[in-house]
Amino acid sequence: MNFDFKSLFAFTKEIFIKIGCPEADAQSATEVLLSADLRGVDSHGVARLSGYVRLWEAGRINPTPKIRIVHETPSTAVVDGDGGLGLVVAPVAMKIAIEKAKNAGTGWVSVKNSNHYGIAGHHALQAVKEDMIGMSMTNASPLVSPTFSKERLLGTNPISVAIPAGKEPPFVADMATTTAANGKLEILQRKQENAPSGWVQDKEGNPTTNAFGVKEGGALLPLGGDREHGSHKGYALGAIVDIFSAVLSGANYGPWVPPFVAFLEPDPNPVGEGIGHFFGAMRVDAFRPADEFKNHMDTWISRFREAKTTPGHDKVLIPGDPERELEKERMENGIPLLEPVQQDLTALGEKFGVPLRS
Amino acid sequence: MNFDFKSLFAFTKEIFIKIGCPEADAQSATEVLLSADLRGVDSHGVARLSGYVRLWEAGRINPTPKIRIVHETPSTAVVDGDGGLGLVVAPVAMKIAIEKAKNAGTGWVSVKNSNHYGIAGHHALQAVKEDMIGMSMTNASPLVSPTFSKERLLGTNPISVAIPAGKEPPFVADMATTTAANGKLEILQRKQENAPSGWVQDKEGNPTTNAFGVKEGGALLPLGGDREHGSHKGYALGAIVDIFSAVLSGANYGPWVPPFVAFLEPDPNPVGEGIGHFFGAMRVDAFRPADEFKNHMDTWISRFREAKTTPGHDKVLIPGDPERELEKERMENGIPLLEPVQQDLTALGEKFGVPLRS
Repeated sequence: MNFDFKSLFAFTKEIFIKIGCPEADAQSATEVLLSADLRGVDSHGVARLSGYVRLWEAGRINPTPKIRIVHETPSTAVVDGDGGLGLVVAPVAMKIAIEKAKNAGTGWVSVKNSNHYGIAGHHALQAVKEDMIGMSMTNASPLVSPTFSKERLLGTNPISVAIPAGKEPPFVADMATTTAANGKLEILQRKQENAPSGWVQDKEGNPTTNAFGVKEGGALLPLGGDREHGSHKGYALGAIVDIFSAVLSGANYGPWVPPFVAFLEPDPNPVGEGIGHFFGAMRVDAFRPADEFKNHMDTWISRFREAKTTPGHDKVLIPGDPERELEKERMENGIPLLEPVQQDLTALGEKFGVPLRS
Repeated sequence: MNFDFKSLFAFTKEIFIKIGCPEADAQSATEVLLSADLRGVDSHGVARLSGYVRLWEAGRINPTPKIRIVHETPSTAVVDGDGGLGLVVAPVAMKIAIEKAKNAGTGWVSVKNSNHYGIAGHHALQAVKEDMIGMSMTNASPLVSPTFSKERLLGTNPISVAIPAGKEPPFVADMATTTAANGKLEILQRKQENAPSGWVQDKEGNPTTNAFGVKEGGALLPLGGDREHGSHKGYALGAIVDIFSAVLSGANYGPWVPPFVAFLEPDPNPVGEGIGHFFGAMRVDAFRPADEFKNHMDTWISRFREAKTTPGHDKVLIPGDPERELEKERMENGIPLLEPVQQDLTALGEKFGVPLRS
């Protein structure tokens, strides 16, 4: 069943208000959350709404955070999210990066004491509106094992880079630093299908195609899958995200990152505060005139789009193409929600006296 | 046969002087080139020396470049390499990034009109000496096909990130954005062995295990290997390197990047000047006190190093560990050169009247 974007937006915003968010914060959080549903990253959209509420119920989300800069230079800042929703903290931090860039050419903001911030790409895209290159990354609950390890020490730690173009739409990379995101495993679990090789290892650290491998104590694998296929590179990328997001800011890192699910307790001996994010904004005209840059981006994009294809494929995609097409389609035709997600949201609505309408 | 570091250094520097480099530039270029041999990235060290000389003979290297900033803001610069050796241009550009960071917190430098710059990690590491996080990336001759394409549109486009620690040695990621670098294919070719799946496609764009696949008109594959294993992420990473290095600076990008080998002519209709690089430096204390950061990096590193291992492996590595161990070993015992490389260098030395000594 498809849900109209506006109805789903109103429902979500009302829930955030019910848990005590000020109206402007509820608006901002809803924009971030729903952008995931629009762009087809269903695992990071309204399907998570009741998860945020459970964290609030467990006293692990501050609905009225005082978000503030605790350290800064002309091009950098560290932001304390005061335990707020990442969906609220991240847009504030990204805005600070953009303001820094207006004055210093670039702006770089590391964030501590935050929570899950939705999809990385949404935040990076905010810079594009200002003719800037945007960057966004976050650490996350440990589900990923470094190459040669059987312990879960990293999150899926996504990186997004959004780059403006001229006539062409922007280039938007938005990727977990694992071979496959956890959402893709959940799809296979529902279908009772096996996972491809290189996605998962079991709890002993052996490669497995069991789609339930992570749930049974195993781990997701870094991009590359195994050493021969470059998993040490995916591991390094996930590590860089962890260090930029948390060691620079004073958040928790590695195995100390607090779990997203409310039924798991955070480590009683944390190494920092909350989870961490990292944002960047680079003014294009801090390097060359914006029109020149955009014209060359158009040339870059159209050259890659027109590339000759491999057998069985009819076009080469530019990062961001699939998400943008889905966004257009879902704005027009609504957002499909799986039956369990509908039931979950209906129950959430009943609890707070907010009806869910399709 | 092993060659003493000092002898090889003196030989290499003398060759650079013979092609017209000023003494300081020859010193700088040799430091960069030899650091690849020390760190075990043999394909990017003295094995390339005669390649640089052939480019100079073809009039495509300017031995006395006027390297200059053509555009800047407090935290950014674009540098014109004036057609110099990348081995000479890159250290100058990295130094500018470091100086910018001293004043603005961070420094970001995009470079045009340069040539192959050696190993990425050497440049990133320069920032670590100043208690900064260093970043380095470069585009390169097209050998890599984007996901679903059979054309070569990207280079192996490496990314390096170097991060200082306290008692622990620095974290140094240095990786091609492909499943495997071309140097690893060359080893398999010499051994007449097949390549693993996910490394190479043939000229029709079909996956192949033929280690000669690239030489026969095929392409290297982006990190991930195929779509199911995340090659769209490797493609996006390679694309980001290309855009930061060349679209920001005004260098050539994508299929227009000039070839490293002198027997292939650059495109007669270039979209920019030379090849491009991108460097970054972030002062650690632009985020938090340097001691705090380094203590937490030590905790991060030791926690990952002590992680429980998968069957058949006895330790989890930190990015930079293997290269640092090799560097120590080779400083003591010398640098092993393959027979064809020795012959090549001997011939080069005879041509310029510089004897090669082991």
